[in-house]
This record gives sequence, C-alpha cells and structure tokens, in this order.
Amino acid sequence: MRREITGFSNPTVKFLRSLREKKHRKASGKFLAEGLRLLTDARECGHLPEMLVLSSQRDPHPLLEALERDVMQIGGDIIETSPDILEKITGKSNPQAVVGVFAEFDTSLAAVERKGSDIWLVAQALRDPGNLGTVLRTGDAVGAGGLILVDDCADPFSVEAVRASMGAIFTQKIARAPWAEFHQWLRSGPGQLVAASLREAVPYRGAPYTSPCFILVGNESQGLPEEYEAVCDLRVTMPMKGRADSLNAAMAAAVLAYEVLAGLEG
Amino acid sequence: MRREITGFSNPTVKFLRSLREKKHRKASGKFLAEGLRLLTDARECGHLPEMLVLSSQRDPHPLLEALERDVMQIGGDIIETSPDILEKITGKSNPQAVVGVFAEFDTSLAAVERKGSDIWLVAQALRDPGNLGTVLRTGDAVGAGGLILVDDCADPFSVEAVRASMGAIFTQKIARAPWAEFHQWLRSGPGQLVAASLREAVPYRGAPYTSPCFILVGNESQGLPEEYEAVCDLRVTMPMKGRADSLNAAMAAAVLAYEVLAGLEG
Repeated sequence: MRREITGFSNPTVKFLRSLREKKHRKASGKFLAEGLRLLTDARECGHLPEMLVLSSQRDPHPLLEALERDVMQIGGDIIETSPDILEKITGKSNPQAVVGVFAEFDTSLAAVERKGSDIWLVAQALRDPGNLGTVLRTGDAVGAGGLILVDDCADPFSVEAVRASMGAIFTQKIARAPWAEFHQWLRSGPGQLVAASLREAVPYRGAPYTSPCFILVGNESQGLPEEYEAVCDLRVTMPMKGRADSLNAAMAAAVLAYEVLAGLEG
Repeated sequence: MRREITGFSNPTVKFLRSLREKKHRKASGKFLAEGLRLLTDARECGHLPEMLVLSSQRDPHPLLEALERDVMQIGGDIIETSPDILEKITGKSNPQAVVGVFAEFDTSLAAVERKGSDIWLVAQALRDPGNLGTVLRTGDAVGAGGLILVDDCADPFSVEAVRASMGAIFTQKIARAPWAEFHQWLRSGPGQLVAASLREAVPYRGAPYTSPCFILVGNESQGLPEEYEAVCDLRVTMPMKGRADSLNAAMAAAVLAYEVLAGLEG
C-alpha cells in the first residue's frame, strides 16, 4: 500500500523511530536499513523490506524504482514523507532519501548450515556495534558463511552495525547463542575451533587449519575467557612487535580470517 | 606547580575543554590523553604531559605517583579538581581520574627516519578518527615506524584517535603532508610504495615486498585516487569472495601489514 505521512506524531513515525532502540527492535522483530545502496544489496540477496520510507525530495533512480516495484509486489508498504520527518526517524541531520524496515532473520544455530562454507566467524562478547558490522564485512570479503555471536554481544540489527556491515548483514548468516549452547552445537558435527591466543599457541602463519574452520575472537578489552580457549582445537598467535599485547578485535579477526582463507585454498 | 581548581569558569578549565576541538588544538599545539594506562604508556615511551589533571576522588596507585613525580621534576603543572569539573573537561559522564595535556609532536616528514623501520603505514584522506587510531595500533603491532597522513585526514591528536590508538600515538612516529610533498620526499631516498588495489595488480600473498616498505591505504569510501596508485612500485590485490569489492580501510591496512611483515621476515 502506498501512502503519505505528513505529521510528526503519526504512529508509524513513532514506530520507525523506536526501531533505533534495542528493546523496541526486540519487541517488534524489525530493524532499519538506510540508503539505496544498502537496500539494493539487500534486494539482490533476496531480502525485501516490509516497508519502504521515501523522502518526498528524493532524486529519481532506476534502482529505487525497481525496489518500489518489488516491495509493492510482495504487498509491502510504501510511505512518502518529508525530509524533516526522515530526520526524526533516523536521528541524522542529513538522512538518506530511503529507509527500509526488515523483519529480523532467524538467528538460531539450527539454521546454520556449517558444511556450506569453509570459514565461519565467531565473536564472543563483542560489544561495539561498529566492530560487529566490520567483522560482518570481513566475513563477506573472505567468503565466510556467517557470524555466530556468543554470549552478550552488540545487537547486529542496530542501525550502527547494519551501516558498518556495508550490506554484509544481508549476505552473512547470523546466529546468537550462549557459549554452552554454541559449544554443544559445534561438537555435534564437523568443525575446527580456532582462537587467537597469547597462551600456549602455534604461529598463526601456516597453522594446520581445516574446513569448516570456526574462527573465535574475544571481547574488545577482556579477550577470550581462559576456559573457552582451552576447548579450542587450535590456538594461534600473531606477532606483536610493539608495546601493546593485542590487536583491535576486528583487526585480529581480519588478519586471521585471511590467513585461514590462504591456508584452506593453498 | 601543584594547585587546586574548584570553579567551572576557571580559565584553565576552559582551556582544557577547548582541546576537544581541532581549531583549539591547532592554535595551542596541545592535546589531551585520558587515563592512567595511556599516560603510563606515554611515560614509558619518554613522553611526559606538561599538565596533569587529577580527580580529587582518585584511588591511590603507584604508577600514578610515579607519573606525578616525573611531571613535577620537569616543572609541569599538577592540578587537582572535582569529578564534575573533569566531566566537563572530557565531555564524558564517567571520566577517567587522570588526564594529561601533551605538546603535539613534530609531524614534519623531515623528522621521519625511514631506515629505522621495515614498515611504514601511509593513509590517504582517512577521515574517521577511530579508524586512524586503529591504524596506529596496527602499526605498533607489526613494528612499523609510524604513520604518514597524506592529504586531508582526521586529526591524530583528537581524543577519539588517541583513545583508539591504545597508546600507539606515543610509540608511532606521525607525519602529515600533502601528496605531492610526500611523494617527492619518498623518492628522495629508498622506499617501496605498495598499494592495495583493484586495478592491474598482483596477489598480495607472497608479493615481492622490500624494506623500507610504505603501505598506502586510501579513503574509507573513495579508495585511492588512480594517479596515486599509478606511481606505486607495487599494486597488490586481496581476495574478495563476497558481494563487496573492498574491505574497511583499517582492515585492509592490517591484513596487508601482516603479510608484508611475514614477507620481509621470511
């Protein structure tokens, strides 16, 4: 259905605004993605928004028209509104001309097909949504199957994580589970669990990685709990030449993931 | 000199607050670093603050006492103030109990001793201060000599960049120059200029890196200008298995820097 919204106090505006907060995303099971590029990525991956919000001052674009057509076809809503209402919805002073509302994906481990990919990323207590989005983007770059979020991580459906993922939120499978559940699931099938570690570990370069390889990275400031590292099949260490004893968690994930990719392909 | 500040309108408070803005940092040539950990890193690298601001509600700590002693010895200022004034200075609701004011370093290319390190990072138009700090931290991890900021980059002395660098702001040499000046300087001595590129390029893995190797990464959204890539000695490409055609700039720098490190050491 196509309609226009002109009032700030319209309940749809309130609903859209509320999706910037985790509790409202959780309650409704919906999330926001902003901008034509991101929405086109989503569409090309087979994800269409249930609702498309357009600025009345948008420039015409064939990709936007294609998106509108597809959303209409699945019976979605198309809403036209003013730039200042879009500003209110997104909380940004120069909002994108188009915003989509998506249903959150199934994030159960049961939906992870581990044999479909050689590489899976696993983040434990990753707190920063920007880091989380960047890890998703890295996963997309190395051809990972997805990202498994263990323990209390940032919300992958937050506006910030979606934005930092540069569209990888739509290409990467996302699962969420407490550690015990993840570990039990992992051991119920094939899979090598690899951690970047400072403890008893082999050099990351040329280590014996096997597919499917689950690369585990820890919290930004605490690293991985010792007992999580202990049950890994392989602990690897990266050179640290400077004063610091660790890399940024997203950096460590990227360096390690590219090494695993080279190892599995070579 | 040791003194206490109790009033919000004290000129020193205003001065300290102003250092959160680039124009005031530039005018005064000073920058802020927060927290005992960062300040201890600085001290161990031979950088002492000219002014140390302490919360009246700080916990005693031997490293903090050592810092105070050293600052007194070089004739620096030590200021005690209340947590709410510290909050005003740092703009954070739970400020660290100690903040230091440092003189900005010499960021001229003339001060870069290229033969002192095998790896140098070069960022072009890197706009995000968090990314900039993360690149500094990566440089520290791979034992780089420093980071050269080309064209219009984020300010390395911003509170956000200093924080994200996790102390690497004090271990890494930092230089700033327009492209033409950098390129002329580079060609006046030994140095291989390497760019991550999507154009005519060799695989990054096992490419013929030589020391001193200058790793050039481009702007977050635009990448490198074509004419900058054209004058590089080596253009390398990283596998991109997914939908996206690029990595986050800081990720690309980390993956490439670790590959160069392995290549030069192997």
